[in-house]
Formats: sequence, C-alpha cells, structure tokens
Amino acid sequence: MHRTKVKVVEDALDANNTIARANRDDFDRAGVRVVNLMSAPGAGKTALLERVLGEGLGAVRPGVLEGDVQGSYDADRLSVLHVPVTQLNTDPGFGGECHLDANMVRSALPALPLAEIDLLVIENVGNLVCPAEFRVGEDLRVMVASVAEGEDKPLKYPLMFRVCDLVVVNKIDLLPHVEFDVDRFLAALDRVNPGVERMLVSARTGEGVAAFREWLIRAADRAPAPA
Amino acid sequence: MHRTKVKVVEDALDANNTIARANRDDFDRAGVRVVNLMSAPGAGKTALLERVLGEGLGAVRPGVLEGDVQGSYDADRLSVLHVPVTQLNTDPGFGGECHLDANMVRSALPALPLAEIDLLVIENVGNLVCPAEFRVGEDLRVMVASVAEGEDKPLKYPLMFRVCDLVVVNKIDLLPHVEFDVDRFLAALDRVNPGVERMLVSARTGEGVAAFREWLIRAADRAPAPA
Repeated sequence: MHRTKVKVVEDALDANNTIARANRDDFDRAGVRVVNLMSAPGAGKTALLERVLGEGLGAVRPGVLEGDVQGSYDADRLSVLHVPVTQLNTDPGFGGECHLDANMVRSALPALPLAEIDLLVIENVGNLVCPAEFRVGEDLRVMVASVAEGEDKPLKYPLMFRVCDLVVVNKIDLLPHVEFDVDRFLAALDRVNPGVERMLVSARTGEGVAAFREWLIRAADRAPAPA
Repeated sequence: MHRTKVKVVEDALDANNTIARANRDDFDRAGVRVVNLMSAPGAGKTALLERVLGEGLGAVRPGVLEGDVQGSYDADRLSVLHVPVTQLNTDPGFGGECHLDANMVRSALPALPLAEIDLLVIENVGNLVCPAEFRVGEDLRVMVASVAEGEDKPLKYPLMFRVCDLVVVNKIDLLPHVEFDVDRFLAALDRVNPGVERMLVSARTGEGVAAFREWLIRAADRAPAPA
C-alpha cells in the first residue's frame, strides 16, 4: 500500500479512536457497559440475542443498538422481547458502510435510553474485516463464528479474532452435518489470539447459551475498563 | 452522511471505475472473460471452485485470482487442481482491505498468465458490502449465498444481490438441518433483483454443481459485454 494512503487511513483511525473515547466517557458517566458484537453475515448474532434477552439478564437491564446497512429486520425481531432497541443504518444512498464507526454510534447516543439500561449490546454490520478496525466506544468485543463457515476463518481474518475478548462458536447443532473440526478451529484461534475466552453454543437449540448469558451479566457488573 | 464525504466516496468510485475499464480492455485484448465471485465469509466460494475446476471446463482454460486479507489458504487448496492460481493479499499492515478494487487487480495483471487462459475467476474477499461497490474489470458477477446464513440476506445486503448476474445458493445439503425456506429466500431475492438467474447447489455433495460448471463454460464463450 502506498505510504500516503497508509497515512490517510491511520489519521482516520486516530480520529475514530478519539470519538470512541468520547463515547466511552458518556457510557461510563451513565453507568452503562458496552459490548460490540461482531460476526460474518448470518453467523447468528441476532438469534443469539433473541435467546439470551428472551430469558432476561436477571437484574441487569439490557439495551440493543442494531447496526445494519439497510432496513430494520433484526430490530423488528428483537422488538418483541420488550428490550429497548435502537436502529442505526449505515446506508448513505449507494452500498452503505460495511461497519459501524464511533461517529455513527455517537449520532445514535441521543436516541439511546442510557438511564434505563446497564448493558448496551451493539450489533455491528455482518463483516469480518472492517468492524475489527473501528472501535465505537465499547468495553468489550465479542465475535460470533458459525461452524458452517469453516475452521480456517481465524487464519483468514486474523485481526477480527485477535481484537475480541470472547469468541462464541455458534450453530454447534450443525456439527454432525458439516466438515468442521472444533479442535482444528480452536488451534487456529489460539494461533492468532492465544487463550482467548471461547464458548460453544447453539442459538437454535439453546445448548451452551446459558454461558453467554452469564458472561453478559458479568460484563455489566465489571468496573469500567481502562480507556 | 455528510455531503463532502459523499463527494469523496463518489470520486473514489469514479477513479475505481476508470481503472476497472482499463483492466477490462486488457482482458478483452487477451480474449479472457472475467467472473467476479463474491460472498460472505465461509459461503463456499473455494469449495465450489474446487468442484467445478476439479472436473475441468471442457475446452475452456480457467485461471483463478485469489483475493484474501492475508495468507494463501484458498490458493493452496486450489493449487492441486493444476489450474493457474494467483494470490492477491489486501493486508497493508493493519486489518486489510475488505474488498478487491480495480487497482489491486491491475497490480496483479503482470502475474496473470492471460495467454494461457480463457476464463479468469476472481475470488473476492468474503464480504457482502464493499465488493459490490467496486468493479474490478469483470464481465460478470456471481454471488454465492449459503443456506446457513438465513433467508433474509437479500433484504439486508441489497446492493450485493442487485449487482450480480447469477446467485448460487450453496450448501443445500444442510436444508433439512437449518431454518431456511428456499421460496422465501427467492421471493426476497426477486424483490431486490427480479428474475436474476439463480441455481441451487451443494459444493459438498456435488448436487446442482453441473449447472454452475455449464454457466462458467457459457461465460467464457460469450462476446465481450459492452463496457
């Protein structure tokens, strides 16, 4: 890549980080912990949220910020759960942005009921590249990988797997029907992010989902992370 | 989106289109038809190519340009097929570009054995947003959608489904095990790209793959599309 282009990109990421810190300050002041939930399209982020938010998070009051290129299909799915859901579209008229950035989330702040929630889950645009580069003001980053996507994904999209605090391996109900060796996937994961917390779940059957629910409850209870 | 940003993005896409036309001219002069193959991560682009190129394309001599953020995992998988495979990485040191653009493909031109092939398949980076916005010099665009991703994808990523000439619905061997109504998916597809050619396949079992192979052979034989 040409040096000038690298410089422009670095400046853009610097500017994004500045706004992300401002978002984090606002979330901290409101006592709201924030989780940035990322994955490839169709890995099951929304289905996972339907499961855990349908059960509730005990004393923790959750809210969701839904990032989509267009439409409000996921927000509509979650609206039946009686959880505050705010829609954020990235479509500016042509193809739309392939990720949320700090400024988009900042523009949504006035619409978020921060006084009424303890934990905000930001469902990012389905994409394994750019969302990993743009912090939005979150405390923690979670990525969801589906077993239908193949065991090579950590090696092909290393930054995404490297930046996250938790990897949720979803759709394990499909394991008998796909060529996906869990041990090989986890070995690939440990090559790019050694020892990162991981859990195996099926949003469809509910298997393993309790562990993710408990993880979210702990996320809401933790002290603000250092900026 | 701020008007200045829209203008900058439009200029970037204009510049990309200019280079894409130059690529197309070079491909035309060499008598090579070009297919831009796109999908979400893990939808099965490489598995599909393994199937059809493993059988060969009759008299048509194929070549592959592999676009990846990092590594050469897909190129390595295809190298056993005795088809010329050229690797193109988008990683410039941080997260990598989430799509191929015309300039990246242009930089790979000297490495492509254009005199020895009739059909070049460019396997794009797995992503349902940006690859749809950047032409690279192709004649035709194909997108692969996996039934594991869910039937709502055309509505959530409309530009991708709108720009393509063929939609390959892959992993139909998983249909008994996932909640994916083919008719609902196709109805969603027809809302964003009415009547677009589509085929149902399983790269894993081989079901339906013959139709894609024949489509590629026809693609190689067709006259250059109008620029």
